[in-house]
Amino acid sequence: MPPRLTPLVESLPATVPFVGPETQERTRGRAFAARLGANENVFGPSPDAVAAMAAADAGIWCYGDPENHDLKMALAAHHGIPPETIMVGEGIDALLGYLVRLIVTPGTPVVTSAGAYPTFNYHVAGFGGTVHAVPYRDDAEDPDAILNALRDTGAPLAYFANPDNPMGSWHPADRVQALIDGVPENALLCLDEAYIEFAPAGTAPPLDPDNDRVIRMRTFSKAYGMAGARVGYAIGHPDLIAAFNKIRNHFGMNRSAQAGALAALADQDWLAATVSRVEDARDRLSAIARENGLAPLPSATNFVTIDCGGDGDRARAILAALIERDIFVRMPFVAPQDRCIRLSAGRPDDLDLLAERLPEALAAVGPA
Amino acid sequence: MPPRLTPLVESLPATVPFVGPETQERTRGRAFAARLGANENVFGPSPDAVAAMAAADAGIWCYGDPENHDLKMALAAHHGIPPETIMVGEGIDALLGYLVRLIVTPGTPVVTSAGAYPTFNYHVAGFGGTVHAVPYRDDAEDPDAILNALRDTGAPLAYFANPDNPMGSWHPADRVQALIDGVPENALLCLDEAYIEFAPAGTAPPLDPDNDRVIRMRTFSKAYGMAGARVGYAIGHPDLIAAFNKIRNHFGMNRSAQAGALAALADQDWLAATVSRVEDARDRLSAIARENGLAPLPSATNFVTIDCGGDGDRARAILAALIERDIFVRMPFVAPQDRCIRLSAGRPDDLDLLAERLPEALAAVGPA
Repeated sequence: MPPRLTPLVESLPATVPFVGPETQERTRGRAFAARLGANENVFGPSPDAVAAMAAADAGIWCYGDPENHDLKMALAAHHGIPPETIMVGEGIDALLGYLVRLIVTPGTPVVTSAGAYPTFNYHVAGFGGTVHAVPYRDDAEDPDAILNALRDTGAPLAYFANPDNPMGSWHPADRVQALIDGVPENALLCLDEAYIEFAPAGTAPPLDPDNDRVIRMRTFSKAYGMAGARVGYAIGHPDLIAAFNKIRNHFGMNRSAQAGALAALADQDWLAATVSRVEDARDRLSAIARENGLAPLPSATNFVTIDCGGDGDRARAILAALIERDIFVRMPFVAPQDRCIRLSAGRPDDLDLLAERLPEALAAVGPA
Repeated sequence: MPPRLTPLVESLPATVPFVGPETQERTRGRAFAARLGANENVFGPSPDAVAAMAAADAGIWCYGDPENHDLKMALAAHHGIPPETIMVGEGIDALLGYLVRLIVTPGTPVVTSAGAYPTFNYHVAGFGGTVHAVPYRDDAEDPDAILNALRDTGAPLAYFANPDNPMGSWHPADRVQALIDGVPENALLCLDEAYIEFAPAGTAPPLDPDNDRVIRMRTFSKAYGMAGARVGYAIGHPDLIAAFNKIRNHFGMNRSAQAGALAALADQDWLAATVSRVEDARDRLSAIARENGLAPLPSATNFVTIDCGGDGDRARAILAALIERDIFVRMPFVAPQDRCIRLSAGRPDDLDLLAERLPEALAAVGPA
């Protein structure tokens, strides 16, 4: 008789939120020529960060500092907030897992949007919570619907991304602040700002870690170009931040990644240059889409979501035709957003390839 | 009103299993001169691993492969076992957390030894389990006591380390196999073999992932010298290994660490040289202890646990005197093992320093 697993684990599906591009490459037996599906930042990290990681690699025999002290102090200075309001973790994915574990037990209602970040839902399900998903409105997450659902369900936790993935849409700071202000007593808004550095000024409400109704998620995976390093951080009330210490994997951070993130944060010029390159790439992505009769949506991120002008089947067919042509790309999961495909900002070479192969893909799929 | 945390989280202490040396350095305001407290491998990883990590750092903008495919295939070939019996994770600490989560709910009894690896207990407590700790026998974990406790408590999970940390003791393979064979139906033995590469031949029972009563934990943190990279792996029955996919952080692995571990595994000559260096260092550590009237215990690990010939207070005083003299060292937590201090294998320079400062520390503490 095999070991006894928990009833919750037995009930969980074996599916995973995302299939990695390497898995697809192995299945296809062929590498992708352009990697535009995972919203990775092809422009890469600051050369200072690469150098800092390489310098740290020889010292990898040491465990990383479990307090992430140096990075936390640098982040505190960068944001002008106390260090005790910051929790560094192994990417936002890990921090979301810890956050859900702090709040969710079997049956706990949790609010998000249908089609929003599936890894959050994965964690909620993994701790037995019940996801209440409200619809998008105008291809954007809907703050009013989130607030209504929080009130209706009595959920202690809601997820809201600004800017949004997978649509690239965003709300101005005052709208998001109104959402934060509307969070009921005893509830918490998880505000995922993974893409915030790409967004126009005035998108992020001021950081206010005295407010215990919101926790902000930030990352080095997107604008800082370090997805493979696994460095994210949460900003919140010190009591909530301290609670992570009760459950987190204290020695979970890669030591070179800590050094790399510190160097990346210090190189704000590189960050600004990256943001500018991403803007150019978004413009070009949008132009390529239009040239092919497709409708790019506005984006405050490092990707452009493109309305393929049909239903989910049409978008899936175009997606498959691009993948067949060695362009790694993903798409929103939930209707009506699944009429779109999502393309990450690429280097000029990546986008040249897209400009060449998108028409071929569309021709292969045929008219709408 | 702050957000509502789970009753379990509210009940957890804020203490953590280990304080990092960097924290101590900040408190002291002074760096350690020798880092011999965390069983890190000062001889470091294979130069091939360092080169592989450095080469991968520029590509850190990509997420790591969530399947850890290449590393898993290499481990499968190395051990002669099917890849579906291997789960790679962010160090054994993370894998222990996942394992406990698979099996433990509030009130679940779990068996370990009093004074064994505290991070395992931390995870058990973190999921609400109840630790039943059996005593060491002759400074070693006691297989019979583990089996008796499994039967008495009906626990679905037990932890056993071979070789043991913090004592350095070990059991021969046939004794461990008898333990595995005695695990009751529906229960699982977590066999932590973090230090196995340092142990004499005949310490590890044959790998047998058809057996669903045992899961083996291995790591690149110790003999492979990559503690800061966070790469561990579990070997177990494919059904159990597959269950990790329901709850793990799929994109949690650092991409450079994946590449480094792959290169480290390929350089078995470096591993053999490291093991030989560690043997020399153990011999020297033991000689230094004896020269100072202390009694080194036999060790199959990269550390030597040293009987200070008194009680816990005396060992703690010697520990404090060493730390004051800039030697980072730790000690067992639980009596009567807390009569000892634990020193990791150091480079010749580290041990020269220890040879110089241990007599000073002992003189400062005074006679037993």
